Formats: sequence, C-alpha cells, structure tokens
Amino acid sequence: MDVARRATQLLSSLNVGDLVDSVEAFLFDCDGVIWKGDTLIDGVPQTLDMLRSKGKKLVFVTNNSTKSRRQYAKKFQSLGISINEDEIFCSSFAAAMFLKVNNFPREKKVYVIGEEGILEELELAGFTGLGGPEDGKKIVQLKPNCLFEHEKTVGAVVVGLDQYINYYKLQYGTLCIHENPGCLFIATNRDAVGHMTDLQEWPGAGCMVAAICGSTQKEPIVVGKPSPFLMDFLVQK
Amino acid sequence: MDVARRATQLLSSLNVGDLVDSVEAFLFDCDGVIWKGDTLIDGVPQTLDMLRSKGKKLVFVTNNSTKSRRQYAKKFQSLGISINEDEIFCSSFAAAMFLKVNNFPREKKVYVIGEEGILEELELAGFTGLGGPEDGKKIVQLKPNCLFEHEKTVGAVVVGLDQYINYYKLQYGTLCIHENPGCLFIATNRDAVGHMTDLQEWPGAGCMVAAICGSTQKEPIVVGKPSPFLMDFLVQK
Repeated sequence: MDVARRATQLLSSLNVGDLVDSVEAFLFDCDGVIWKGDTLIDGVPQTLDMLRSKGKKLVFVTNNSTKSRRQYAKKFQSLGISINEDEIFCSSFAAAMFLKVNNFPREKKVYVIGEEGILEELELAGFTGLGGPEDGKKIVQLKPNCLFEHEKTVGAVVVGLDQYINYYKLQYGTLCIHENPGCLFIATNRDAVGHMTDLQEWPGAGCMVAAICGSTQKEPIVVGKPSPFLMDFLVQK
Repeated sequence: MDVARRATQLLSSLNVGDLVDSVEAFLFDCDGVIWKGDTLIDGVPQTLDMLRSKGKKLVFVTNNSTKSRRQYAKKFQSLGISINEDEIFCSSFAAAMFLKVNNFPREKKVYVIGEEGILEELELAGFTGLGGPEDGKKIVQLKPNCLFEHEKTVGAVVVGLDQYINYYKLQYGTLCIHENPGCLFIATNRDAVGHMTDLQEWPGAGCMVAAICGSTQKEPIVVGKPSPFLMDFLVQK
C-alpha cells in the first residue's frame, strides 16, 4: 500500500489497528484535539486508554506557552485525564530545553515577554528569568532625553503569547537584543492566532514575536511547532 | 556636471547657491534635521530664513504619528521657529489624507492603534476615530468561551507608534481586519525604532505594525516615508 493511499485510509475502522500496531509513539496536539477551551473532546479518554493498554508512548504537544508542564498536567486532571508531566511538551518547556541543550550560561539571565509558564519552566531548568507578568503593569513614557535601563546580563529574550504585552516589555526586549552582545531572540512559536471558542480568533504568540521582529529587524529561533528543534528533541527523548 | 558629481558637492559653499536656485521646494525631515529631542539644531533658523527670503516652498515631513500638524506647529513655535500648519506633513495627517483621497465612506469608523495625533487628524478630515489613548487602559483576559465585541462599522485600522499598546487594542484591530469585510489596514510608517537621545533607540511604529501583520497575516498600506502615497500627495500639493 503506498503512503498516499494509506494516509487517505487512516480513519477507516478496518485499518486503524494496523496503523496503531506500526507506530511506537503518538504525538497529540491539545487545543482542538484533546480539548476545546475547557471541554474535553468526545472519545479522547477511551482513545488514550486504548493506546496506553497497547504500551504506546504518548506525548502531548502544545504551542501554548502561557502554562508550564505542571499547569498543563493540572488542566488534564481537571478534565478527568491522568497524565505524567513528562508526557507534556509545551512551548514554554521547549524554550527552557532549547537553552539547556545549547548550554546557555547559568550566570546569564533570560528576559521574558510572555506569561507565567515560561518563567516556571526556566526556573525548573535552572535559569533566571526576568520580566513576564511582573512587568505587565510597568509604564514607560517616551520623553526627550529619557534613558531606559536594562540588565546587561540578559543573554536571551524569550517571546511567547502575552496578554499583558506593553511598551515597557517591547522596549526591554528590543534593548537586550540590540545592545547585549550575542543575546538570543527565541520565539516559543509564531502562531498568528489562537481560539477561546469556535467563534473567534485571538492574537497568538506570532503577534508579539512579530512586534520584536519589527523593532529589532531580526528573526527569532523558533522552538515550538513547527521547528526542527522540537522534532529533534522529541525523537531523542 | 553629472548628477553623481553634483551630489558629492552639495555641501560645498561654492555651489550651494546653484542648488538652491535650481529647486522650488524643500522637504525637511524633523527628528535629527530640525531638532534632536527638544533641542533645535544649530543653523536651522538661519537656513529656513534664507530659503523663505528666496521664496522657496518648505515642507516639514515626519514619520512620527503621535502628534497632529497643530501639535507640531506648537513644537516648532516652542523652539522659536514660526511655521504654518500647512507646511507640516506628519504621518498622522498622511493617514487621514489617504482616507480622504480614496473617498473612505464618512459613515464608517476608523480604529486607531496609536496616539492622539492620529485621532485629531482624522477628526479634522471629517472621519470618526475609535480607540487610541482611550483604549490604553482596557484589559481583556483570555478565558475559555469569552467573546470580544467589536464595531462592525470599522472600515479601516490605522496603526502608528503607540506607547500604550496592549492586548485589547491588538485584538480589536485584528478582529476588524479579519472580520469586517474590506477593512483597510493602514500603517503610518514602518520605522523600526526612533530616538529620544543619541544614546538609545526605542521601538517605533514598525513594532506595532509588525504585531498586527503577525496576527492578521496581512501587509499594510504605508502612508508615511517612504511611500508612493506621500510623494504623490506632496507633488500634487
């Protein structure tokens, strides 16, 4: 059976057993696959139970960077699905793993344009994060001769979805990337939009990432879907 | 004398008279040409007086969209230079003129991601602006099943430098461009950065414009420098 024909037959009840038997690990997206908003999608628990009973490895991959793996595990539990944190690969974790795999110096700091999940994963990986929610209420005004201070020890700026984005954070991240020698610019992902319901789209991390591309005129290293880093990391794991 | 040779000699005191005599109108940038921050650059008043005494037409062009022509005239006056509002072409005015020249329907509204200058120029041109500073303190939280309301009568989103940028405005602008049929996406300019001093750069309108490009996956119509609209408009004027 050629690949194309096989792909068109994936949903047939006749050959789904062949497919499952031929694969060792299953990667699942979360939003729209496991849940929609806070509602579990029909058939998910049964499917996961079936795969586990066959000894399959499961990985839940999400580009949402606002939560950590721990916070995602809680979300799974609240929906009645018991999973291990190690089975979750969210883009906040991806950012921390990218720094770890690339031996990012522990004495350097990481500035975060994003939410709590990124800071939590950075800390768990042994890195010092700055910014994030803490800078959400900071105001800076453009005035002649004003000088904006930033930490020269920041060696990476991680940008993800940030519903508290402001000019202070944009200026902080821009200055680090412009002025700190070798400072990395890491995007959790570049999704243009996300969904809270089926009815409406909301700006995704791609919006904040693009803003920093716009001010720095630089392109980021992307660590979420679709990125070579993510696939390499999962395959090695 | 060929053009290249002439260009290299522009600053020579021997041929500056020839140059001035051969040109009818002079376009000046403002930041870094007329002033730096709130300080007038040496020799500017004398140069402008000399050009006026020779009957030259002067136009002061700036990509800064935060002020209106009226506000710019006040800034010139505060620096001791008397000019007419008609001699100012700022990108806030450019946005309003783009809509006027293109017969934007008066009954439609314009959503502004930017500052007071854009709203003032829109109003002077007879258009109804929404957003801008008024939306700077609005907070919206990403929650499952939340629905964001926006006006269906918005027919254009104008994006300029906005030091009060927030997720509310990004979502409002994105929804108008995505959901209102034919809604225009207009950028005052795409300057990556601007200066408050010689020492430091700050994110410019290009940062906010890129954010909306990132969430909408659309490219804007640019009305400030460098744009065909600006040159065509000034030549016709």
